[in-house]
Amino acid sequence: MLTTSSQGQERNPNAGGDVLGTRILALADRLARFSESANGLTCTFMSPAHRATAAELCKWMTAAGMTAHIDVAGNVVGRYASARPNAGTLIVGSHYDTVRNAGKYDGRLGILAGVVAVEELRRRNVALPFHLDVVGFSEEEGVRFSAPYLGSAALAGRFDPDMLKRRDATGQSLADVLRERGGTANAIAALARRDKLVGYIEVHIEQGPVLLHENLPVGVVSAIAGFARRRVTVRGVTGHAGAVPMALRHDAATAAAEIVSMVEQRCAQVPGLMGTVGQLQVPGGAINVIPGLCELSLDIRSDNAGELEKALGDIAARIEAIAARRGVSVEIENVAGLLPVICTPRLRDALGHSVARQGLPVRSLVSGPGHDAVMFDGVTDVGMLFVRCGNGGISHSPLETITAADADIAVRVLLDLLTNFEVRP
Amino acid sequence: MLTTSSQGQERNPNAGGDVLGTRILALADRLARFSESANGLTCTFMSPAHRATAAELCKWMTAAGMTAHIDVAGNVVGRYASARPNAGTLIVGSHYDTVRNAGKYDGRLGILAGVVAVEELRRRNVALPFHLDVVGFSEEEGVRFSAPYLGSAALAGRFDPDMLKRRDATGQSLADVLRERGGTANAIAALARRDKLVGYIEVHIEQGPVLLHENLPVGVVSAIAGFARRRVTVRGVTGHAGAVPMALRHDAATAAAEIVSMVEQRCAQVPGLMGTVGQLQVPGGAINVIPGLCELSLDIRSDNAGELEKALGDIAARIEAIAARRGVSVEIENVAGLLPVICTPRLRDALGHSVARQGLPVRSLVSGPGHDAVMFDGVTDVGMLFVRCGNGGISHSPLETITAADADIAVRVLLDLLTNFEVRP
Repeated sequence: MLTTSSQGQERNPNAGGDVLGTRILALADRLARFSESANGLTCTFMSPAHRATAAELCKWMTAAGMTAHIDVAGNVVGRYASARPNAGTLIVGSHYDTVRNAGKYDGRLGILAGVVAVEELRRRNVALPFHLDVVGFSEEEGVRFSAPYLGSAALAGRFDPDMLKRRDATGQSLADVLRERGGTANAIAALARRDKLVGYIEVHIEQGPVLLHENLPVGVVSAIAGFARRRVTVRGVTGHAGAVPMALRHDAATAAAEIVSMVEQRCAQVPGLMGTVGQLQVPGGAINVIPGLCELSLDIRSDNAGELEKALGDIAARIEAIAARRGVSVEIENVAGLLPVICTPRLRDALGHSVARQGLPVRSLVSGPGHDAVMFDGVTDVGMLFVRCGNGGISHSPLETITAADADIAVRVLLDLLTNFEVRP
Repeated sequence: MLTTSSQGQERNPNAGGDVLGTRILALADRLARFSESANGLTCTFMSPAHRATAAELCKWMTAAGMTAHIDVAGNVVGRYASARPNAGTLIVGSHYDTVRNAGKYDGRLGILAGVVAVEELRRRNVALPFHLDVVGFSEEEGVRFSAPYLGSAALAGRFDPDMLKRRDATGQSLADVLRERGGTANAIAALARRDKLVGYIEVHIEQGPVLLHENLPVGVVSAIAGFARRRVTVRGVTGHAGAVPMALRHDAATAAAEIVSMVEQRCAQVPGLMGTVGQLQVPGGAINVIPGLCELSLDIRSDNAGELEKALGDIAARIEAIAARRGVSVEIENVAGLLPVICTPRLRDALGHSVARQGLPVRSLVSGPGHDAVMFDGVTDVGMLFVRCGNGGISHSPLETITAADADIAVRVLLDLLTNFEVRP
């Protein structure tokens, strides 16, 4: 029987009251009380709020019957052990750090879905043929050290020890921050999982409007877009706004504006390609001074590695041409980049079957944002489930929402996957 | 006889050593020691450095034989009185406040030329048929209260008492700042000159490259460009840089970029029209977030009131069209504006004759930047002399320079004007 809720979830198979989803939302509310800011939720790497969140998650995992600990990189790792000691391990994870003034579900939903799934497995007395590790990764958003995936990179064996030299806005290095908990380069390297992994599954809020527009509670991720981030510094010649004729100017801001428009036009030409200038400023600009300096950021994404590379090449060449024509100089700094990740077909199919067994259509979609799952590409099989995002799909905002009914479906899809998961020999 | 100096001043009529110009540069150096900043020159309205500068100027005027005082608006007013008690008054003035990290000559050159001219008149025992008031205006740059011409507006009877409510960056109001010296609205209104004025003359550094390019030490200003300043706030819809396809975006920064390019193109079409976006920023922008907000400033100038008005109308209409097409909203705030000022032909001719009598060609040019002279338009006849600016014409910078030879010519042109000035009946 299908029920119709007031939020428009037309295929909720759990007519009994969304108990698991309601519990997830309640736990997310409790976690959101740990915040760096007086209003709203901010939980950046190793802040007091961040440490308190980790401790709370660890407590909940233990209460759910897992053996749990917080590792030297701040990851909270809880194990629901298999009776077979030589079994492989399936990781269900996502991150508990947040952007500034964040929503309550980005990252946390995936951890809480794992915790609530284990509570339910235990209630049902289900033993699994693999160890199930529920992991709350310490850092994915890249806020404090302008570098994402600090937590998941460590477990995936991809942590770059050069990261330890990075400094936050106050000048503290990542090495300083990790030292007190014993997080040396060697200790972090030792976190790399060398046991037999049978897969990595991440449940995450969509952060976009696709499922909402199609009236679907969940979707199966086919690929995670690759991205490249650049910082562009344009240097021109400053001057008095009234004293230099237009034709004699070398204005850094008008050059930057032309770059912004060019990036937008180039990326709009190719489906799946996205280009964003999220940061743009004339430092110390005055209303009557021709800017001699303008800084901007670029974030270019695609699920197609070839299209991404072509776009990056074009954009760099066009920036050079704009600068040459205008007599300004540009510096392009390569900040970060990752190739697209194709989710493992086997896990994609398994998630699709689990969605279908809830009586729901199987919608496949690309993730534009990156996720911790990216770090496990090439390390083990990777699968992701997206959950509908309310409020027009708004993300990185306190307006981010999910419904209890959708969270309930998500955890039931996860339970279905876990209980039907075939461990390959 | 013409001499050739190493700085390329080929028509210096003062082969004897630029004594007056050398004195002006020495006095400018002494004034520049009073600064708010440890390095470089910053002298904003009513800072300790500003008060010390006023006291020093007042001392020098007194030493030069003037009766001098500092008024409640901070203007330093020195009088070289005529023997005829009923004579009218000619004002020679400019400002002593500066932008942050300023040059030493912007404004101050015009005051010091007046002081040194009086010293020379006295040395020569020249009596004038008019009172000569040398005025150091307290505020022209508009740095502290984001409003220019506070000093000259007071003497010209144009001070707007609403200005007293304006607050500086620390929250202090202009009324608070003026209260301790008795600067009430009534006291400032009483500064308005109600005596008979016979003219206003301002000597100022050009702040641009025209005279330098034409190898001329001085030029006669034909008009001061009018300007309009706007603050534009663009509001779009924020979103994750990876989750919103290009076609579904309402990006505030790309809309702002289109506005910047449009302003540049529109202003480049008309000679004498200038458009500058000096401030441009995505407040709190993040590299992976589509901007929901972008702020920019506009400064539009022309010496032609009709062209200025046409440009402002076009730009506003085009901003609205850009916003409508992109589904973003814009607010345009009118910050400030002044119509162009045409210098009085009589004083322009008189300055031209004085330049010619130094054996120099008479170059007429428009001033893009505004000056205290603007406040006296309609109050009395207005004339301005520009002095060559070195270093490519750079202004509002410690790199601003003039030579002693050029300063010498400027003060000799001023002396010639004063001694040949015909007071109209």
